[in-house]
Amino acid sequence: MATIAETIARIGPLDEAAMEAARQRQAVLTKPHGSLGRLEALSVQVAGIQARPRPAVSAKTIIVMAADHGCVVEGVSAYPQEVTAQMVANFAAGGAAINVLARGIGARVVVVDIGVAGPPDAPDGVLSRRIAPGTRNLAAGPAMSREEACRALEVGIEVAQAEVARGISLIGTGDMGIGNTTPSAAIIAAFTSLAPAVLAGRGTGIDDARLANKVSVIERALAVNQADPTDSLDVLAKVGGFEIGGLAGVMLAAAAHRVPVVIDGLISGAAALIAAGLAPLARGYLIAGHLSVEPGHRAALGHLGLEPLLDLGMRLGEGTGAALAMSIVEAAVRALNEMATFSGAGVSEALESGC
Amino acid sequence: MATIAETIARIGPLDEAAMEAARQRQAVLTKPHGSLGRLEALSVQVAGIQARPRPAVSAKTIIVMAADHGCVVEGVSAYPQEVTAQMVANFAAGGAAINVLARGIGARVVVVDIGVAGPPDAPDGVLSRRIAPGTRNLAAGPAMSREEACRALEVGIEVAQAEVARGISLIGTGDMGIGNTTPSAAIIAAFTSLAPAVLAGRGTGIDDARLANKVSVIERALAVNQADPTDSLDVLAKVGGFEIGGLAGVMLAAAAHRVPVVIDGLISGAAALIAAGLAPLARGYLIAGHLSVEPGHRAALGHLGLEPLLDLGMRLGEGTGAALAMSIVEAAVRALNEMATFSGAGVSEALESGC
Repeated sequence: MATIAETIARIGPLDEAAMEAARQRQAVLTKPHGSLGRLEALSVQVAGIQARPRPAVSAKTIIVMAADHGCVVEGVSAYPQEVTAQMVANFAAGGAAINVLARGIGARVVVVDIGVAGPPDAPDGVLSRRIAPGTRNLAAGPAMSREEACRALEVGIEVAQAEVARGISLIGTGDMGIGNTTPSAAIIAAFTSLAPAVLAGRGTGIDDARLANKVSVIERALAVNQADPTDSLDVLAKVGGFEIGGLAGVMLAAAAHRVPVVIDGLISGAAALIAAGLAPLARGYLIAGHLSVEPGHRAALGHLGLEPLLDLGMRLGEGTGAALAMSIVEAAVRALNEMATFSGAGVSEALESGC
Repeated sequence: MATIAETIARIGPLDEAAMEAARQRQAVLTKPHGSLGRLEALSVQVAGIQARPRPAVSAKTIIVMAADHGCVVEGVSAYPQEVTAQMVANFAAGGAAINVLARGIGARVVVVDIGVAGPPDAPDGVLSRRIAPGTRNLAAGPAMSREEACRALEVGIEVAQAEVARGISLIGTGDMGIGNTTPSAAIIAAFTSLAPAVLAGRGTGIDDARLANKVSVIERALAVNQADPTDSLDVLAKVGGFEIGGLAGVMLAAAAHRVPVVIDGLISGAAALIAAGLAPLARGYLIAGHLSVEPGHRAALGHLGLEPLLDLGMRLGEGTGAALAMSIVEAAVRALNEMATFSGAGVSEALESGC
C-alpha cells in the first residue's frame, strides 16, 4: 500500500487537454450549446480527472466507513450507540437505504468497520479495520492520537486502492456512526471559523434541548483542543472521527489514481475538508453529490468551492445522497460519449454564432 | 380509445389509504424519521397514485411529442424549422440526449410526430400522428382550431393508453419543436397573468434582440387571441402547439390509469397547465422532474403547486430532465419497498419520541 505521503505526492492537476477535448465535443453534440447545464460541466470534469477525452464510469463502488464516537456520553444523539453496530449488520444484510440505492445504480457497497464500539467481530462481508472501539470524548480532549489519525487515513487509502485495483471508475463515499455529526461540525468550525451555533444541526432528529447541548459540546471541543486548521491531521486527531479520517483517505487515494469521488453529506464534507487540507489538488477530483439538511454541510461545501448536484432534503448519510448523484454523473458521461454530433446526425446548427 | 371526456371522468383522487400505509411503513424503516427527505414524500405520492401501499415503477416509458410552430416566421428561434424533423430522425436513430439518458435508466422512448413540418413520412420507429404540418402563426391568429386541439389531446391519450396496455408503471414526458418555448410561454402567461417579458427565455440560445422580439410576439399572440384561461381548450387552440396538447393528453390518460407522470421542462409545464385546467385532479399524478433555465417554467410549476426534484441548469427539453428525475422516483419507491424495518433488522429506534 502507498503511504499517505506517497499518495498525496501522486495527486496531480486535472488534465487540461482532455477537458478541452471534452468541451469541444460537447459543442458539436446534437443540442443547443450549454443546454445540458451541469451535465456538461460534469462530463468535462470527469474527462479531466480520468485524463480521457471520452471518460467512462461504468464500474461504481460506494465505500461506507463506520465508527463510534466518545462524545455520545454527552447526549448528542437521539439514538443509542449500539445502533452503529446494528446498522453495520443491516448493511451486511443488504437492508439499509444505501444497499437499496446502490442496487438501483448497479454499484458495489464496501462497508468498513474502522472503529465501531462493541464486540470486535465485524459481520461477514464487512471489512474489519478497527483502529479502536470508538474515539474518545472530544469535549474532554483529543478524540484520537495523531498516530490513530494517520492510521484512519491509511485504512481509507488501502480500501480505495483495492477498489481501484478492481477497475472501479467512480467512487461514492458514505458513513455510519452515531454521534458523528458532532465531530463533523467541529471540523467544519475549525476550518471555516464559523460558530458552532450556526453549524450544528439536528442530526438523526434531536430536540431543541439536545441541540443546545450539542452546540455546547462542539464549543468545548474547540476550546479544549485548539485544533490548528493549517494542520489537517491535527484537526482530524483532536475533533474528528475514525470514519471521517477513513473517508479522507479514500478521497486522497481516489485523486491519486484519477478516480472521481462523489461525496455524500455532512460527514463526507468534513472528510473532504481534511483531504483538501492535506492535498489541495484533491479538490478537483470531488463531486458534491447533494446538499444535506445539516446546516454545516453548506458551509463545508462553500469552503471547498463545491456546488451540490442534488437538494432533496436528505440527512441520512450512509452515502445515500452520493448514490443518487452517481446516476447523474453517469448520465453526464454517457451523454458526452454516446450522443450523435450535428454532422453525424445531419442536424443543422444554430443560425447565429455564439449562441 | 377513451374519449377526452371519458378519460377526464375516470381521474380520481390519490388513494389516501395507500398513502397512509406507505407513511406508516416509512416510519419503521431503518433510518431516522424523515431522513430520506423528498424520497419519502415521493414514495407516498406514488403509493397514492397506484393505490398500492407498496408501489412499483419498474417499467418506464418516455413519450416525446414533436411538432412545428407557425410562429417561427417571426424569428423566435436560433435554429431553422427543419431541425425539428432532423431531430426526430436523430431520436429514431438513437443519437439524441434523450435516447442516451433513457438507455441509462432502462426506459423505452416513444417518439410521436404529432405535427412536424416537411415530408409526411415519419422515420421508422416514430409514431406518425400528424394533425397538420405545424401550427399557424399564433401572433396573427389562433395556432389551431378547437377541433385540432381536441385531436392533439386524443393523440396523447391514445399513445399513453398503449403504453399503459404494455404494463408501464412510470411515464416521462418530453418534447421537440423548434419555436415551442414561444407558445409555452404564451400558455403560461394566459394562465398566470404574468407578463411575457418575465416569462420568455432564450430557448435554444437566442440573443437579446431575438428575445425582445420573442416577447413582442407573445404579447401580440395574447392580444390578438384573447384566450380564455377558464377554458383550457381555448388556450391550447389559440396560443398552443400540437406537441403541447399531445403531452396534456398523455398526462390525462396517465392520471386516468393511475400511472405517475414525471414532467420535463417548460413545454411539459405548459402542457401540465392545460391538463390540470381540464382535470384539476390530474395534478396529483404529476411529478416535476426538474427546473428549467427558462424563466416561465418556475411560474408554471408555481401555479401548479409543484416543486421540481432537480435543478441542474438544463434547458434542452426532449424529456431529458424527466429522465434524470425518473431514476430518483425509482430510487424513492425502491427504498420504501426494499429497506429493512427496525424490528426486522434488530436496530434500536430513537431514544426520544417524536424526533
